[in-house]
Amino acid sequence: MADLLECVPNFSEGRDEEIIAELRSALGIPGVTLLDVHSDRDHNRSVFTLVGTPEALVDAVYQAARVAAERIDLTKHTGAHPRLGATDVVPFIPLTGTPMSTAVEASRALADRVWTGLSIPVYFYEESATQPERVNLEQVRGKGFEEALATVAAEPRRRPDIGNPQLHPTAGAVITGARGPLIAYNIYLNTPDITIAKAIAKTVRHSGGGLRFVKALGLDIPERGCVQVSMNLTNFRRSAMFTVFDLVRQAAESYGVAVTDSEVVGLLPAAALFDVARHYLRMHHFEENQVLEMRLLETNPDEALAS
Amino acid sequence: MADLLECVPNFSEGRDEEIIAELRSALGIPGVTLLDVHSDRDHNRSVFTLVGTPEALVDAVYQAARVAAERIDLTKHTGAHPRLGATDVVPFIPLTGTPMSTAVEASRALADRVWTGLSIPVYFYEESATQPERVNLEQVRGKGFEEALATVAAEPRRRPDIGNPQLHPTAGAVITGARGPLIAYNIYLNTPDITIAKAIAKTVRHSGGGLRFVKALGLDIPERGCVQVSMNLTNFRRSAMFTVFDLVRQAAESYGVAVTDSEVVGLLPAAALFDVARHYLRMHHFEENQVLEMRLLETNPDEALAS
Repeated sequence: MADLLECVPNFSEGRDEEIIAELRSALGIPGVTLLDVHSDRDHNRSVFTLVGTPEALVDAVYQAARVAAERIDLTKHTGAHPRLGATDVVPFIPLTGTPMSTAVEASRALADRVWTGLSIPVYFYEESATQPERVNLEQVRGKGFEEALATVAAEPRRRPDIGNPQLHPTAGAVITGARGPLIAYNIYLNTPDITIAKAIAKTVRHSGGGLRFVKALGLDIPERGCVQVSMNLTNFRRSAMFTVFDLVRQAAESYGVAVTDSEVVGLLPAAALFDVARHYLRMHHFEENQVLEMRLLETNPDEALAS
Repeated sequence: MADLLECVPNFSEGRDEEIIAELRSALGIPGVTLLDVHSDRDHNRSVFTLVGTPEALVDAVYQAARVAAERIDLTKHTGAHPRLGATDVVPFIPLTGTPMSTAVEASRALADRVWTGLSIPVYFYEESATQPERVNLEQVRGKGFEEALATVAAEPRRRPDIGNPQLHPTAGAVITGARGPLIAYNIYLNTPDITIAKAIAKTVRHSGGGLRFVKALGLDIPERGCVQVSMNLTNFRRSAMFTVFDLVRQAAESYGVAVTDSEVVGLLPAAALFDVARHYLRMHHFEENQVLEMRLLETNPDEALAS
């Protein structure tokens, strides 16, 4: 049984096709499956979605971080997206059945490789954070590369977790850590009244007194002539999809409004949907390894992936 | 993208550990993952649960059928379970995302290998059946090996689909075909009254006027002090788990009885649970390849990283 992780490294290059191809090539090693690449010219940033064993992912990202360090010079970088490093942020996310500790260990292993091999210091965030004020990515990144390069060494409180207090002169620092999967989840209502969507969003989101791991906005969807409660679920184990759905449905009912449908934007882990089935079918003793495909991935991922 | 199948070959040997080990060894080739082995001494029968690519599965089952033909002599066989062949029945079942046609093709390929290589004739059943009266396994198997060996050759209506009209003198015939996954699904009620479970079972099952692809019994579960509606779901796409659950729940309510929980016994395909989540969350446009783990199983890592 091999634990599998998702890994979503963000590199500060979204314009030079040659460098993006080199990064992609460095990530393409046995044991790593590339699910998606998204490059943004305005942000000047490329985001790769990978799945694989922890060892293979760490090795792949290390090789790509070497390419990034050689080919990206942050002193000459322009782009709308904030950044601290050429390899800017590397989250490791457990797939269904893999413990969070495996993702944390992968971030530690990557940090050691990056500092030892590339002399780039590393910060840990989210579940890998060593201090509460480093859990949040934006707090770790602060005002970005230029400011950090000039000031971090002199401020002990802002020292990297691994390596020099000084940032790398052109590659900055890497921020890595473990986190749960983020699910982009939208619920549509049979009304064009945006005030209702906004009111429901406020009820359901954490900042408004709602669910701990839900961010929500009310949005107008003119092409459908209706409104939407647009959400990010940051911990589907603790603020579950079915809880979110039922809360929005009940809140909508109080306005005499119905839910017409809901959608996940992008990818989500199988476990989030298994939890929904388990809840509504009252399958209190259901185990994820009863699912054929999960057992297949857990039994022998190499054979499962052979084609 | 590689299509994956489940395959559950049944061999007419459940007592001789040496032969069972030889069958297991023959099945263990690259591209095939063995999920389960179940040998029954009374039935004198062993059932293997395999997952893999169609090509690898066909090859593995062919190699095991060769072992079975060499080592099992049906003229000397005793056992409670009915049988027509040393390799008795070989269903191919599509995993989530794989079309039924791929499973049908696998059964055709196996039949050709078995007849050409081992001179054992083959019958097709379920989705691979060539005649309506051969869809049902029990109808194809009839009264079993001895009776078929003596009579089949003289009855054109009972000729094998592939190969001689004459059965193999010691290995009989192989029955193979494609079918959907079977889900063993039980729903528990908060009453010890078996008459209620029996009445609900009758309502929900096809033979009682209920759902087309549901077989159901009412059972007493004395160790829990309650009763259970015990079901086999033979087509979860058309008689869905959520439909079954809601029907049983409503029927129970009409007796003032509640559903305490439900359970799947053994394995089930991920798609059956995705359908449940899709239904209750009203995710009308959900696609299975939005699930990370499904995408991982569907993607050939080499292809994904090429170009």
